[in-house]
Amino acid sequence: METVVMSNKQVVLRDYVTGFPSESDLLITSTTVDRKVPAGSKTVLVKNLYLSCDPYMRNRMRKPDPSSPATAQSFIPGKVKKNIYLLFLQPISGFGVCKVMDSGHPDYKEGDLLWGAVGWEEYSVITPIPNLHFKIHHTDLPLSHYTGLLGMPGMTAYAGFYEICCPKKGESVFVSAASGAVGQLVGQFAKLMGCYVVGSAGTKEKVDLLKNKLGFDDAFNYKEEKDLNAALKRCFPVGIDIYFENVGGKMLDAVILNMRPHGRIAACGMISQYNLQIPEGVYNLSLITYKRIRIQGFNAIDYFHKYSEFSEFVVPYIRQGKITYVEDVADGLESAPAALVGLFHGKNVGKQLVVVSRDHESCSV
Amino acid sequence: METVVMSNKQVVLRDYVTGFPSESDLLITSTTVDRKVPAGSKTVLVKNLYLSCDPYMRNRMRKPDPSSPATAQSFIPGKVKKNIYLLFLQPISGFGVCKVMDSGHPDYKEGDLLWGAVGWEEYSVITPIPNLHFKIHHTDLPLSHYTGLLGMPGMTAYAGFYEICCPKKGESVFVSAASGAVGQLVGQFAKLMGCYVVGSAGTKEKVDLLKNKLGFDDAFNYKEEKDLNAALKRCFPVGIDIYFENVGGKMLDAVILNMRPHGRIAACGMISQYNLQIPEGVYNLSLITYKRIRIQGFNAIDYFHKYSEFSEFVVPYIRQGKITYVEDVADGLESAPAALVGLFHGKNVGKQLVVVSRDHESCSV
Repeated sequence: METVVMSNKQVVLRDYVTGFPSESDLLITSTTVDRKVPAGSKTVLVKNLYLSCDPYMRNRMRKPDPSSPATAQSFIPGKVKKNIYLLFLQPISGFGVCKVMDSGHPDYKEGDLLWGAVGWEEYSVITPIPNLHFKIHHTDLPLSHYTGLLGMPGMTAYAGFYEICCPKKGESVFVSAASGAVGQLVGQFAKLMGCYVVGSAGTKEKVDLLKNKLGFDDAFNYKEEKDLNAALKRCFPVGIDIYFENVGGKMLDAVILNMRPHGRIAACGMISQYNLQIPEGVYNLSLITYKRIRIQGFNAIDYFHKYSEFSEFVVPYIRQGKITYVEDVADGLESAPAALVGLFHGKNVGKQLVVVSRDHESCSV
Repeated sequence: METVVMSNKQVVLRDYVTGFPSESDLLITSTTVDRKVPAGSKTVLVKNLYLSCDPYMRNRMRKPDPSSPATAQSFIPGKVKKNIYLLFLQPISGFGVCKVMDSGHPDYKEGDLLWGAVGWEEYSVITPIPNLHFKIHHTDLPLSHYTGLLGMPGMTAYAGFYEICCPKKGESVFVSAASGAVGQLVGQFAKLMGCYVVGSAGTKEKVDLLKNKLGFDDAFNYKEEKDLNAALKRCFPVGIDIYFENVGGKMLDAVILNMRPHGRIAACGMISQYNLQIPEGVYNLSLITYKRIRIQGFNAIDYFHKYSEFSEFVVPYIRQGKITYVEDVADGLESAPAALVGLFHGKNVGKQLVVVSRDHESCSV
C-alpha cells in the first residue's frame, strides 16, 4: 500500500522559559506526517483547524520541577544543550478544533469534527481519550467557539461559577481578567442568574467591551487604579460575595479585604504570577477565618464528564443570542507564537485563538 | 427588698493594642454587683468558675476598623484619651464556665452550671442566648473541660475537622499549633478516623506531648527547623491531604508546597499573624489551582447549633479514655492577664484556662 506523506508545520518550544515568554521562545519547524494511520492502529489522523491559546500553557514552558505540580506536564523543548537540538522535535500542545482525515478507531470516521487535545501543528495523530476529545455535533455554530465558549474555557466558566461559586440571585460577583476567554462567560452566567457583576481588565477598550457588549454592571481598568482596594470599594460598597479569580497577587489581596462573610473565591488561575520568578505575597489571608471565606482551586478537566450537560445548558442561550462571545483570531500557524505570548501582555481582546486552516468548510483535504 | 452588693473583680483592657500584647495592657479593677437580678428582669447572675484564654481574643484588642471584620467585636478599653478613663469600666469577655446564682429567666435556676459567653470578672450578669450559653449536663466530667474539650475549642475541632476537612480513613493530616486547645483534639479525632497525623509545636516539651501522650504519629518543633518545607517533606513523603491551619504565614506557605491534589485546608486561625503590624506574605497560592486545593475559613460559632451532636459524639470517648485533654491552668483572676498574653508566646502547654473560683464543688455562694 502506498503511503502518501504530507509536510506538517509545527510550533516547538525552543527551551524552558523563565520570566515572560517571547516569540523567539517558540520555533516554527516542519516535519512530515503519513496521510494514513498505520493498518491496525487505533489512532486518528486529524487536520487542525483552530488552536486555543490559554494562560495555563505558560506553566508548561517551565523546566519540570518535582515539587511543582504546575510543571508536571511541561512541554518537551527542542534544545537539549547549547546548540544541540532533539533530532525529532515535539510540538507544543493544547486544546484545538480538528477534523478527522483518517481513522483506525471504530468510533471516529473521516470528516468527524472534534475538539480536544491536539499538537500545535497542521496535522496531529491522536489517540482519542474520552473526556479529552469530544465530537462536535452543533456544526451550525461557529467552529472557532469550540476553542472557547464551547470548549475548555466554557467548561471552566461553567464549572467554576455554578459548581464552585454556588451563586445565588442578587449576589455580588467580581471577575478579574473579565474580558478573557473565561471571564466574559462568567460575567454573562452571573447576569443570567440575576447577580450584580463587575469586571476588571487592562485597557479602556476591554472595559468598554465589558460594559457595552458583555452586559457587566460595571468594570474598571486595573492599570489605571492607584488603589485596587478603593476601586473595589467603589464598585462594591457592601462587598463581594463571589470572586472569580483569574489573576492572583495584588488583586487577590484587595479582593479579600472586600469579601463579604461566607464569600467564595473560585481560583481558576493566577495569570499575574505565571511569569514572575518570585511570586507576589498575599498578605490578607488571615481575614478568611473571620469572614468564613472559601477559596477553591479547580481545573476544568475535572468536570469534563459534564460537558454534554454544559452543552445542553449553553447552546440554547447562544442560539437565542443571550450569550455572546468575543474572539481574537490570529491567522495561520506562523502567527501562533505571537498570539500565545501576547496573552501574558494582555494583547488579546477576548478569547485568543489561532486559525490553522480555513478550508474546513469545503474541506479539500 | 434588701439588695446585697458584692465586690466584683474584673479584667479590663487598658487601651487598644498594637503588636504583641503585654500584661500591662490588662488591668485588674474592682466594682460591685447586686446579689439579686432586678425583679422582672430576664437576666441571670452567674459566678464565673473558669475562663477560657483563646487566640481570637487578640483581635478583640485591636482598634475597631470598619474594613476589618477581625475588629468587629473589639473590647471596650478603659482609656478614652491620655490619662482619661471611662467612669464605668467594661471587663473583657470570652467563653467561660459559670454557676447560676440568681435568675429572672424561666429556663435557668440557681445552681445550674453553664458554659458560654461571660465577662472576665468574678460575677457576670448575662442574658442567656441560645447557642451561646449551654447548660452543663455531664457534671461528672471535669468542669474545666467546658472551656476546651467540651466547649468552643472542642466545637472548633469537631466542625473544622469533620465538616470542613471531609477526612477519609488513611489520609495524611497536618496540624499546626498541635498541642493547643484545638490542635490536640484535631489530632486525636484524626487518629480515631484512621488517618496519619503529624503536628507542629514550638517546644520540645510540646512535641513530646504530641508523640507520647496525644497519639500523633510524628511531630516537630517548628522553631528548630531551618526549612519548614523540608520538615514537611520528611514527615509527609507523599504529601498532605488535610491541613488544620492554626498559625498562617510561613507555615501555610510551606504546607501549600506539600499539599496533595484535592487537599483541604481548614483555616481555624492564624495566630502567627495576629501581633504583626504588617502580616507575612503567602507566596505559593497560585499552586492551589493546579492542586485543586480548598482553603476554608470558618468559625465554630456557626456550628454551635450542633453542640449536642458533638457532645453525644465526644463524651463516650472521654469516658472510655479514648480522648484525653491537656490543660494549662492559671490560678485566680489576677493571673488571667499573664495567661492570656502567654498564648502569643506559646507559653501555654495545652488548653490555657483560668480558675476564677474553686468553690464550685461546695458552692458556698
